[in-house]
Amino acid sequence: MEKVNVADGFDSFDETWSPRLAAELNGQAVKFAKLDGEFVWHHHDDADELFFVTSGELRIELREREDIHLTEGEFVVVPRGVEHRPVALPEADVILFEPAETRNTGNVESERTADVERL
Amino acid sequence: MEKVNVADGFDSFDETWSPRLAAELNGQAVKFAKLDGEFVWHHHDDADELFFVTSGELRIELREREDIHLTEGEFVVVPRGVEHRPVALPEADVILFEPAETRNTGNVESERTADVERL
Repeated sequence: MEKVNVADGFDSFDETWSPRLAAELNGQAVKFAKLDGEFVWHHHDDADELFFVTSGELRIELREREDIHLTEGEFVVVPRGVEHRPVALPEADVILFEPAETRNTGNVESERTADVERL
Repeated sequence: MEKVNVADGFDSFDETWSPRLAAELNGQAVKFAKLDGEFVWHHHDDADELFFVTSGELRIELREREDIHLTEGEFVVVPRGVEHRPVALPEADVILFEPAETRNTGNVESERTADVERL
Protein backbone atom coordinates (compact mmCIF):
# COMPACT_ATOMS: atom_id res chain seq x y z
CA MET A 1 0.00 0.00 0.00
CA GLU A 2 2.41 2.62 -1.31
CA LYS A 3 1.28 6.05 -2.43
CA VAL A 4 2.04 7.21 -5.97
CA ASN A 5 3.08 10.76 -6.78
CA VAL A 6 1.93 11.47 -10.32
CA ALA A 7 4.70 13.96 -11.17
CA ASP A 8 7.41 11.65 -9.83
CA GLY A 9 5.90 8.75 -11.74
CA PHE A 10 6.03 10.56 -15.08
CA ASP A 11 9.55 11.81 -14.28
CA SER A 12 10.73 8.23 -13.78
CA PHE A 13 10.65 7.20 -17.46
CA ASP A 14 11.10 8.75 -20.90
CA GLU A 15 9.72 6.28 -23.44
CA THR A 16 6.60 7.37 -25.29
CA TRP A 17 3.77 4.94 -26.14
CA SER A 18 5.07 2.56 -23.48
CA PRO A 19 2.54 2.54 -20.64
CA ARG A 20 3.70 1.84 -17.09
CA LEU A 21 1.56 0.09 -14.49
CA ALA A 22 1.11 2.42 -11.50
CA ALA A 23 -1.56 0.48 -9.58
CA GLU A 24 -4.11 -2.33 -9.83
CA LEU A 25 -7.50 -2.57 -8.17
CA ASN A 26 -10.68 -4.57 -8.75
CA GLY A 27 -9.21 -6.12 -11.89
CA GLN A 28 -8.53 -2.68 -13.32
CA ALA A 29 -5.18 -1.03 -14.01
CA VAL A 30 -3.94 2.51 -13.56
CA LYS A 31 -1.31 3.13 -16.22
CA PHE A 32 0.91 6.12 -16.91
CA ALA A 33 1.63 6.81 -20.57
CA LYS A 34 3.69 9.46 -22.30
CA LEU A 35 2.19 10.17 -25.68
CA ASP A 36 3.89 11.86 -28.60
CA GLY A 37 2.10 12.59 -31.87
CA GLU A 38 -0.29 10.16 -33.51
CA PHE A 39 -1.25 6.72 -32.27
CA VAL A 40 -2.99 4.05 -34.37
CA TRP A 41 -6.73 3.74 -34.95
CA HIS A 42 -8.08 0.91 -32.78
CA HIS A 43 -10.85 -0.17 -30.48
CA HIS A 44 -11.24 -2.44 -27.46
CA ASP A 45 -13.98 -5.07 -27.71
CA ASP A 46 -14.35 -5.58 -23.96
CA ALA A 47 -12.88 -2.51 -22.29
CA ASP A 48 -14.07 1.00 -21.59
CA GLU A 49 -10.99 3.22 -21.39
CA LEU A 50 -10.50 6.42 -19.41
CA PHE A 51 -7.95 9.00 -20.58
CA PHE A 52 -6.94 11.59 -17.94
CA VAL A 53 -4.50 14.24 -19.14
CA THR A 54 -2.10 15.43 -16.42
CA SER A 55 0.17 17.47 -18.71
CA GLY A 56 0.04 18.63 -22.30
CA GLU A 57 -2.83 18.29 -24.74
CA LEU A 58 -4.53 15.27 -26.29
CA ARG A 59 -6.98 14.99 -29.16
CA ILE A 60 -9.05 11.82 -29.30
CA GLU A 61 -10.22 11.33 -32.85
CA LEU A 62 -13.42 9.37 -33.41
CA ARG A 63 -14.91 7.96 -36.61
CA GLU A 64 -18.51 9.01 -36.18
CA ARG A 65 -18.50 12.16 -34.12
CA GLU A 66 -16.38 15.22 -33.37
CA ASP A 67 -12.94 14.88 -31.88
CA ILE A 68 -12.54 15.37 -28.14
CA HIS A 69 -9.82 17.79 -27.01
CA LEU A 70 -8.39 17.26 -23.54
CA THR A 71 -6.00 19.53 -21.68
CA GLU A 72 -4.42 19.21 -18.24
CA GLY A 73 -6.98 18.18 -15.63
CA GLU A 74 -9.53 16.78 -18.09
CA PHE A 75 -10.65 13.22 -18.79
CA VAL A 76 -13.04 11.24 -20.95
CA VAL A 77 -14.23 7.65 -21.11
CA VAL A 78 -14.13 5.97 -24.53
CA PRO A 79 -16.69 3.14 -24.37
CA ARG A 80 -15.86 -0.38 -25.54
CA GLY A 81 -16.25 -0.92 -29.24
CA VAL A 82 -15.72 2.73 -30.18
CA GLU A 83 -12.88 3.14 -32.65
CA HIS A 84 -10.56 5.96 -31.65
CA ARG A 85 -7.13 7.42 -32.28
CA PRO A 86 -5.26 9.40 -29.59
CA VAL A 87 -3.12 12.23 -30.95
CA ALA A 88 -0.84 14.17 -28.58
CA LEU A 89 -0.28 17.84 -29.47
CA PRO A 90 2.65 17.38 -29.54
CA GLU A 91 3.11 15.58 -26.22
CA ALA A 92 0.90 14.59 -23.33
CA ASP A 93 1.19 12.73 -20.03
CA VAL A 94 -1.91 10.59 -19.63
CA ILE A 95 -3.27 8.37 -16.87
CA LEU A 96 -5.26 5.43 -18.23
CA PHE A 97 -7.89 3.54 -16.22
CA GLU A 98 -8.91 0.30 -17.87
CA PRO A 99 -9.19 -3.45 -17.28
CA ALA A 100 -5.79 -4.84 -16.30
CA GLU A 101 -5.50 -7.06 -19.38
CA THR A 102 -6.19 -4.29 -21.92
CA ARG A 103 -3.73 -4.15 -24.82
CA ASN A 104 -2.76 -0.60 -25.78
CA THR A 105 -3.54 -1.08 -29.47
CA GLY A 106 -6.78 -2.97 -28.83
CA ASN A 107 -7.82 -5.02 -31.85
CA VAL A 108 -4.76 -3.94 -33.86
CA GLU A 109 -1.30 -5.55 -33.87
CA SER A 110 1.12 -2.73 -34.61
CA GLU A 111 4.65 -1.52 -34.02
CA ARG A 112 2.99 0.51 -31.25
CA THR A 113 1.75 -2.62 -29.47
CA ALA A 114 3.63 -2.59 -26.16
CA ASP A 115 3.91 -4.68 -23.05
CA VAL A 116 3.19 -2.91 -19.79
CA GLU A 117 6.08 -2.60 -17.34
CA ARG A 118 5.69 -1.71 -13.69
CA LEU A 119 6.24 1.94 -12.90
CA MET B 1 -19.00 10.60 -24.36
CA GLU B 2 -18.54 13.97 -22.67
CA LYS B 3 -15.22 15.12 -21.25
CA VAL B 4 -14.97 16.08 -17.58
CA ASN B 5 -12.91 19.01 -16.36
CA VAL B 6 -11.81 18.20 -12.82
CA ALA B 7 -11.66 21.81 -11.59
CA ASP B 8 -15.09 22.62 -13.03
CA GLY B 9 -16.48 19.44 -11.49
CA PHE B 10 -15.34 20.33 -8.00
CA ASP B 11 -16.54 23.92 -8.47
CA SER B 12 -20.03 22.65 -9.29
CA PHE B 13 -20.95 21.59 -5.74
CA ASP B 14 -20.20 22.53 -2.14
CA GLU B 15 -21.38 19.68 0.06
CA THR B 16 -18.66 17.75 1.86
CA TRP B 17 -18.83 13.96 2.32
CA SER B 18 -21.34 13.76 -0.50
CA PRO B 19 -19.63 12.07 -3.44
CA ARG B 20 -20.73 12.89 -7.00
CA LEU B 21 -20.62 10.41 -9.86
CA ALA B 22 -18.37 11.80 -12.61
CA ALA B 23 -18.10 8.73 -14.85
CA GLU B 24 -18.69 4.97 -15.01
CA LEU B 25 -16.63 2.37 -16.84
CA ASN B 26 -16.22 -1.39 -16.63
CA GLY B 27 -18.53 -1.57 -13.61
CA GLN B 28 -16.36 0.96 -11.79
CA ALA B 29 -17.22 4.50 -10.77
CA VAL B 30 -15.21 7.72 -10.80
CA LYS B 31 -16.54 9.89 -7.97
CA PHE B 32 -15.64 13.42 -6.88
CA ALA B 33 -15.74 14.02 -3.13
CA LYS B 34 -15.06 17.10 -1.04
CA LEU B 35 -13.72 16.02 2.32
CA ASP B 36 -13.62 18.10 5.47
CA GLY B 37 -12.10 16.84 8.70
CA GLU B 38 -12.55 13.30 9.98
CA PHE B 39 -14.54 10.53 8.35
CA VAL B 40 -15.63 7.30 10.07
CA TRP B 41 -13.55 4.16 10.42
CA HIS B 42 -14.76 1.57 7.92
CA HIS B 43 -13.75 -1.02 5.39
CA HIS B 44 -15.12 -2.43 2.15
CA ASP B 45 -15.45 -6.23 2.00
CA ASP B 46 -15.43 -6.46 -1.79
CA ALA B 47 -13.91 -3.23 -3.07
CA ASP B 48 -10.42 -1.89 -3.47
CA GLU B 49 -10.62 1.89 -3.30
CA LEU B 50 -8.37 4.47 -4.92
CA PHE B 51 -8.02 7.95 -3.37
CA PHE B 52 -6.53 10.59 -5.68
CA VAL B 53 -6.06 14.03 -4.10
CA THR B 54 -6.51 16.92 -6.55
CA SER B 55 -6.47 19.71 -3.96
CA GLY B 56 -5.65 19.97 -0.27
CA GLU B 57 -4.24 17.27 1.95
CA LEU B 58 -5.57 13.92 3.12
CA ARG B 59 -4.38 11.55 5.81
CA ILE B 60 -5.54 7.96 5.52
CA GLU B 61 -5.36 6.39 8.95
CA LEU B 62 -4.88 2.62 9.16
CA ARG B 63 -5.19 0.28 12.12
CA GLU B 64 -2.11 -1.83 11.62
CA ARG B 65 0.44 0.37 9.89
CA GLU B 66 1.53 3.98 9.56
CA ASP B 67 -0.84 6.59 8.21
CA ILE B 68 -0.54 7.60 4.56
CA HIS B 69 -0.33 11.32 3.82
CA LEU B 70 -1.48 12.45 0.40
CA THR B 71 -1.12 15.90 -1.11
CA GLU B 72 -2.20 17.28 -4.49
CA GLY B 73 -1.27 14.91 -7.30
CA GLU B 74 -0.87 11.80 -5.13
CA PHE B 75 -2.96 8.66 -4.84
CA VAL B 76 -3.10 5.35 -3.02
CA VAL B 77 -5.14 2.18 -3.28
CA VAL B 78 -6.66 0.86 -0.04
CA PRO B 79 -7.23 -2.86 -0.63
CA ARG B 80 -10.53 -4.53 0.21
CA GLY B 81 -10.89 -5.55 3.84
CA VAL B 82 -8.44 -2.97 5.15
CA GLU B 83 -10.02 -0.76 7.79
CA HIS B 84 -9.24 2.89 7.20
CA ARG B 85 -10.29 6.41 8.12
CA PRO B 86 -9.81 9.35 5.76
CA VAL B 87 -9.04 12.64 7.50
CA ALA B 88 -8.85 15.87 5.46
CA LEU B 89 -6.41 18.49 6.74
CA PRO B 90 -8.61 20.47 6.92
CA GLU B 91 -10.14 20.06 3.45
CA ALA B 92 -9.38 18.01 0.37
CA ASP B 93 -10.84 17.43 -3.08
CA VAL B 94 -10.53 13.73 -3.84
CA ILE B 95 -11.27 11.58 -6.88
CA LEU B 96 -12.39 8.08 -5.90
CA PHE B 97 -12.11 5.12 -8.23
CA GLU B 98 -13.98 2.05 -7.01
CA PRO B 99 -16.71 -0.44 -7.97
CA ALA B 100 -19.88 1.42 -8.92
CA GLU B 101 -21.93 -0.04 -6.06
CA THR B 102 -19.47 0.90 -3.31
CA ARG B 103 -21.04 2.61 -0.28
CA ASN B 104 -18.95 5.47 1.08
CA THR B 105 -19.00 4.20 4.65
CA GLY B 106 -18.40 0.56 3.67
CA ASN B 107 -19.48 -1.82 6.40
CA VAL B 108 -20.69 1.01 8.65
CA GLU B 109 -24.11 2.69 8.69
CA SER B 110 -23.48 6.25 9.83
CA GLU B 111 -24.71 9.81 9.52
CA ARG B 112 -21.97 10.07 6.91
CA THR B 113 -23.55 7.34 4.75
CA ALA B 114 -24.54 9.15 1.56
CA ASP B 115 -26.20 8.39 -1.74
CA VAL B 116 -24.21 9.28 -4.84
CA GLU B 117 -25.68 11.95 -7.09
CA ARG B 118 -24.56 12.56 -10.65
CA LEU B 119 -22.03 15.34 -11.02
